[in-house]
Amino acid sequence: MGIVGNPTDTGMQIHDARELDAEALRRVLARPRIDFSSVLSTVAPIVEDVRKRGDAAVRELTQRFDGVQLDRVCVPLAELETPALAPEVQRAFDTAHANIAAFHAAQRGANLDLETMPGVRCRRVTRAIPSVGLYVPGGSAVLPSSALMLAIPAALAGCGTIVLATPPRADGSVSPEVLYCAKRAGATHLLLAGGAQAVAAMAWGTASVPKVDKLLGPGNQFVTAAKMALQSSEAMVAIDMPAGPSEVMVVADAGAAPAHVALDLLSQAEHGPDSQAVLIALPGLDAARVRGRGRAPALRLANAYAPEHLILNVADADDWVDGVQCAGSVFVGPWTPESVGDYASGTNHTLPTYGYARMYSGVSLDSFTRKMTVQRLSREGLERLGPAVMTMAAVEGLEAHRRAVAVRLGVE
Amino acid sequence: MGIVGNPTDTGMQIHDARELDAEALRRVLARPRIDFSSVLSTVAPIVEDVRKRGDAAVRELTQRFDGVQLDRVCVPLAELETPALAPEVQRAFDTAHANIAAFHAAQRGANLDLETMPGVRCRRVTRAIPSVGLYVPGGSAVLPSSALMLAIPAALAGCGTIVLATPPRADGSVSPEVLYCAKRAGATHLLLAGGAQAVAAMAWGTASVPKVDKLLGPGNQFVTAAKMALQSSEAMVAIDMPAGPSEVMVVADAGAAPAHVALDLLSQAEHGPDSQAVLIALPGLDAARVRGRGRAPALRLANAYAPEHLILNVADADDWVDGVQCAGSVFVGPWTPESVGDYASGTNHTLPTYGYARMYSGVSLDSFTRKMTVQRLSREGLERLGPAVMTMAAVEGLEAHRRAVAVRLGVE
Repeated sequence: MGIVGNPTDTGMQIHDARELDAEALRRVLARPRIDFSSVLSTVAPIVEDVRKRGDAAVRELTQRFDGVQLDRVCVPLAELETPALAPEVQRAFDTAHANIAAFHAAQRGANLDLETMPGVRCRRVTRAIPSVGLYVPGGSAVLPSSALMLAIPAALAGCGTIVLATPPRADGSVSPEVLYCAKRAGATHLLLAGGAQAVAAMAWGTASVPKVDKLLGPGNQFVTAAKMALQSSEAMVAIDMPAGPSEVMVVADAGAAPAHVALDLLSQAEHGPDSQAVLIALPGLDAARVRGRGRAPALRLANAYAPEHLILNVADADDWVDGVQCAGSVFVGPWTPESVGDYASGTNHTLPTYGYARMYSGVSLDSFTRKMTVQRLSREGLERLGPAVMTMAAVEGLEAHRRAVAVRLGVE
Repeated sequence: MGIVGNPTDTGMQIHDARELDAEALRRVLARPRIDFSSVLSTVAPIVEDVRKRGDAAVRELTQRFDGVQLDRVCVPLAELETPALAPEVQRAFDTAHANIAAFHAAQRGANLDLETMPGVRCRRVTRAIPSVGLYVPGGSAVLPSSALMLAIPAALAGCGTIVLATPPRADGSVSPEVLYCAKRAGATHLLLAGGAQAVAAMAWGTASVPKVDKLLGPGNQFVTAAKMALQSSEAMVAIDMPAGPSEVMVVADAGAAPAHVALDLLSQAEHGPDSQAVLIALPGLDAARVRGRGRAPALRLANAYAPEHLILNVADADDWVDGVQCAGSVFVGPWTPESVGDYASGTNHTLPTYGYARMYSGVSLDSFTRKMTVQRLSREGLERLGPAVMTMAAVEGLEAHRRAVAVRLGVE
């Protein structure tokens, strides 16, 4: 079993995993370190300026960083016409919309309603997050697919305010594809700004930008740093997850077409020079021997790396999935390139990077909701459960907790 | 409709909500400001010391802050005997365990498996977070109930490593009730330390403390600040939520017993001098008139405050629940004091405070798992979906994404 390191970085590194000790393996799999603290010091004054001066700061920062003079910083989407796209392009986005909406609508869970004891009814109900801010990167590329991936579950969840932020193009306009997807998916506001200033405007709220409760979406290191700073601030805002550069790990055996493997690695590499693409190449043996020798160590490597995208281009790919513990999204078999999930299979492409797949999930319907518990005891329920509660409260020395039960039950 | 402000603070403030304008209402409902930045500068050197020196730092900091000389910083729980408790106490904790386990086990969702188009199969599967760190406050009170509330869902989720941290008692031992609950619920390690040093030891890992992927549990401002700093650091660790002082809002009408309302407010106040207890008192009218006049404005207030605990002690309490948008947990009707949820009804008592109920959920089984998406296309599926993917990739200028499909389909 070999490992091929990032082909866009210092050239193709090839290692035999069997010859690496734990420390060498850790080095081969190490991601480029992100220096959060230096980026944080760059974005802090921007975040503070937007907090103090609102729209005026966003306008000035957009002039400075994007060279664009904005008429209006934020516009209700109801005021904008749906742009006309080429029919083939519109059909493509509509197909993606249908699949993404189907997969995310299916994530709605039933509310939980359980009597844990007779007379003790416990429920768990779902509530939409009232106001959310979605960041859709722009600049070098337009990414209308991110508009779909974020706004569709937000609208399905029932968020009342859905602000979509994206940097303006050089002429101050928004890309028609992004606008089409934002309106199609059900966003309510368009914030024509990018970077830390866009994120800060949504977190604090300005005269024209509604204040949001949660920030979601991918972004460069400045966007990420601003999100991380804001989630620990007085802005009272949550974020979806920390984000590093995009990454893929491909596991391929002797049956995988080399051209397909190469293009899957390059699909990642073209996201930018800091993208990670790692290949675990199983030995060029027949399928029976591969199954016998390669799966367990390859899965150990994959789980240790916890890739954003994991492509299993191996003969017995279906049998591997149960062994994948840590990955953002898994692509199974020879006909499932990463690009299908990036665009249109239905799964979300906003996924944990940098090893955060160990503890974070990708964006889903859940990202736009909260679960609230509700309990109701009958008098009989409190009579049954009360003694245990009073005993525990006494152990913890919380006298009013105990008496809130005792006085209701008339035992003191 | 009146509002009674925090009774433990500057004395009982009574306001008539109808006489307050929006700004005055905001002031009445404002929580005491938490100065995260000053606390962060206190905990930063502690977090750094533990990162560099591991167990030795934890030992020294525990000597300094708790006056305790530890033999071993962290012990596998399998090495410790289950302590004997008084039979009544053990029964109480066992009852709580049964109810909490029942309610959290019922949160297991079915895996999602959907063909979004013929040949395009998308799944969503659940994976446990491999290693978690649970903080159980100690010091002035022992809180074995928090050990149950955190370790039960962690064990049900299947987390392999479950480190439970709690400050040592003055004699260097752990409270037998906390130890009983930790073992009963299925924690794997006991870290006998508190404060920022305990949180840092779990986040970085030390010679004796396993490195965890996520930190959960309540704590004072130093614990919270350490968690917030670590989630933005190279430690690679997630947290459950930011935490402020505990709080309750009670809505009561003319039918509520004043003694019950008072004890429910005091149950919150006894958590500490910074706890918040707010009463929305509906006018002393008969139930028919209360229903007619009080519900909508009271719900607006409650949702604006987004309390950790919301007690609905009103005649028509069941009818109110659908209108509650923002609260951590809701307590319905006259027989449901907050203490039942704090201990034993089955719901989790680790809940969002400080208004974070707008965007965070309380701890649940979900807090210990991730959702991973899995897609598999057949050749026919890629033939069907591929054209849309190629079109979208072309719009975004991502050529390898397009070719990863085109070459597989033999169209170039």
